[in-house]
Amino acid sequence: MGQINTSTPKGFRDFLPEQANARQFVVGKIIETFRLFGFEPLETPALEFAETLNGKYGEEEKLIYEFETKGGDKVALRYDQTVPLARVAAQYPDLPKPFKRYQIQPVWRGENPQKGRFREFLQCDIDNVGSSSPLSDAEIIACALSVAKNLGFQSSFMEINDRTNFGNLESKYVSAIDKLKKIGEDGVIEELVSKGLPKNDATMILDSIRVKQPNENLRQIFQFLEQMGFKEGEDFKFSPTLARGLDYYTSTVFELVTPESNNSLAGGGRFDKLIGRYSGVDTPAVGISFGFDRIVEVMSELQLLPKLSSSAKVLVTVFSPDLLDKSLEIGSLLRSGNINTEVWLDPESKLDKQLKYADQKGIPYVLIIGPEEAEKGTVTLKNLTDKTQKTFPLDELASKLSS
Amino acid sequence: MGQINTSTPKGFRDFLPEQANARQFVVGKIIETFRLFGFEPLETPALEFAETLNGKYGEEEKLIYEFETKGGDKVALRYDQTVPLARVAAQYPDLPKPFKRYQIQPVWRGENPQKGRFREFLQCDIDNVGSSSPLSDAEIIACALSVAKNLGFQSSFMEINDRTNFGNLESKYVSAIDKLKKIGEDGVIEELVSKGLPKNDATMILDSIRVKQPNENLRQIFQFLEQMGFKEGEDFKFSPTLARGLDYYTSTVFELVTPESNNSLAGGGRFDKLIGRYSGVDTPAVGISFGFDRIVEVMSELQLLPKLSSSAKVLVTVFSPDLLDKSLEIGSLLRSGNINTEVWLDPESKLDKQLKYADQKGIPYVLIIGPEEAEKGTVTLKNLTDKTQKTFPLDELASKLSS
Repeated sequence: MGQINTSTPKGFRDFLPEQANARQFVVGKIIETFRLFGFEPLETPALEFAETLNGKYGEEEKLIYEFETKGGDKVALRYDQTVPLARVAAQYPDLPKPFKRYQIQPVWRGENPQKGRFREFLQCDIDNVGSSSPLSDAEIIACALSVAKNLGFQSSFMEINDRTNFGNLESKYVSAIDKLKKIGEDGVIEELVSKGLPKNDATMILDSIRVKQPNENLRQIFQFLEQMGFKEGEDFKFSPTLARGLDYYTSTVFELVTPESNNSLAGGGRFDKLIGRYSGVDTPAVGISFGFDRIVEVMSELQLLPKLSSSAKVLVTVFSPDLLDKSLEIGSLLRSGNINTEVWLDPESKLDKQLKYADQKGIPYVLIIGPEEAEKGTVTLKNLTDKTQKTFPLDELASKLSS
Repeated sequence: MGQINTSTPKGFRDFLPEQANARQFVVGKIIETFRLFGFEPLETPALEFAETLNGKYGEEEKLIYEFETKGGDKVALRYDQTVPLARVAAQYPDLPKPFKRYQIQPVWRGENPQKGRFREFLQCDIDNVGSSSPLSDAEIIACALSVAKNLGFQSSFMEINDRTNFGNLESKYVSAIDKLKKIGEDGVIEELVSKGLPKNDATMILDSIRVKQPNENLRQIFQFLEQMGFKEGEDFKFSPTLARGLDYYTSTVFELVTPESNNSLAGGGRFDKLIGRYSGVDTPAVGISFGFDRIVEVMSELQLLPKLSSSAKVLVTVFSPDLLDKSLEIGSLLRSGNINTEVWLDPESKLDKQLKYADQKGIPYVLIIGPEEAEKGTVTLKNLTDKTQKTFPLDELASKLSS
């Protein structure tokens, strides 16, 4: 049989162990912080009925992966975690409120991979369903700021606005103004004009938005944030031109930004009307979604990812076939002491090859049980980091390795 | 706008917080044990090219979810983690060998949901790519047995066979013999006859298989397992009629069984020819896959799942709007001490409602800061488990809660 194409579809990625370990580290930190604020896990299926997803995402809807199963169901791959949450909230009306959940699952979007975008990526969301208090908006923002701090971001902050600040302005104009930071004042005016506004009106509208002051809702949120220990101007800032794309936000909107990246690390807001589209009963909700891939990318650039070693702390080498039983026995001993241990699997290999493998994989210690060690009941432990080695009685091994 | 259907497609499930927490607990234990044996994480995409999956699963292939994207790619949802691993091994030939990876991701199969089967479920796999030594088979088995022990299964054991024990027997007959435990001797003979064997031959063949002894490969594996501390007859057993369904196994096959369940908890074997179908170069490999959902189900029946409480250890109540700032401040204080903390989010709520919420969610402690506490710099801590409560100075709080 000939060879087969071994690539993945465009925009889809494998994560080999080094990357997968780094990703697990970051996910772990994020979950830790979500739980610190009392959010509970929720998982929803990868496939929903297409009708559940359709009509919720505006123009982006064309990026949904939709297909018909052999059984004739029209289904769609998860596109975000907010719509499934809204569906869950409607399906299980008896969940204790506020329902504060976190959700960390992949989503799929048929983005153009030529722009460096991925078609499968992980989202990390927290949402609060059932509370209309601005205190809930503040809590979501506080939790997101704490995530950024716990990941090591020093200069990140939250930009905050209220969509009602745009009054009745048509959404095509709002989305132009939203781009102020990216395309500058001239760029915004140009886009407003190209969308049909006379230049004078465009300038006037932009100016009037830029001088807005925080409304009552935002003033309350800012006060709560201060009471939780966050500082205006440093941890969060009022940003009157911020709008965010998704149609379903009803008032507060926010974006977590950091000077080191042009793109935001997270974004969210209040969506008090979305759940009612499933349940028939308006249910207030507010939340934020972290762009996991971007976070890992920026952390890598800023060297915020720790040097993660391999799973195994020690490689137990095999000196020769007749000493294999010793190596197996000691391997089991170490594991029963909860020390992550690899035993070399080919009794015929030269020691050199085994040491090279440990080095390649970043295993910090190598254990050698040669004829002399076997006879005397000792072991030789090589530290591959500082290139030292010591021989000592077997019963001292566990304590030497767990320190 | 009217209401929308809020259900999930058949065979697809939501995991609400209680279940999601239990699942995370079990996944955590499994990962811990995989790492104890030095396996490293790998993640592959949910979508592969359809040609990558087709022709690998035999009859079951019809269960693959396959569709064409808007861009015209023929793609398929991950059906298992072995085929993607084989694709990865072929795509990245320079991965250090043995490549010992674990992978824990959902897979999708268009099973008949009327039989209680799910169409989306989690698989937990370990595989070793690159080693033909029976020591690698033994290690996979040892790791799987350790997973079962760490999850609390007392009586589980591994049934082990070598497919070459069936000689040149046609695979339709092999699969009949494989069912011995489920359908009994008469059932097997009946199926062999219905598939074309004369009754005498059927009886003779079954008898000749049942009296087989472990071959050289199995004898070595059993010896290695003993040297690692596992006992034949207790932790593992020779099972000459075991075959396992998938076409790609080439010699050793095994199944983790437990007396409490009719179905196996995990199954695997050696597949030395699969990777060569992608790379053109034969590459030995051996591995096992855990049926996660079945494991959680049996653990639940055997009460092996711990009572998991909510994320939050304490609910900071809000006595009245003018005391909210105190509650927010103390909430932040607790979180900075790494204590998972919920703060009640509606300053207008009665205390009763707040206590009821903590009770519903299983939050073990409730903190009250009323006017007297605020004035004296104390707090009142209610233990909802033993119904006691104490008032003490604020600065003793962290130590009281972290103990």
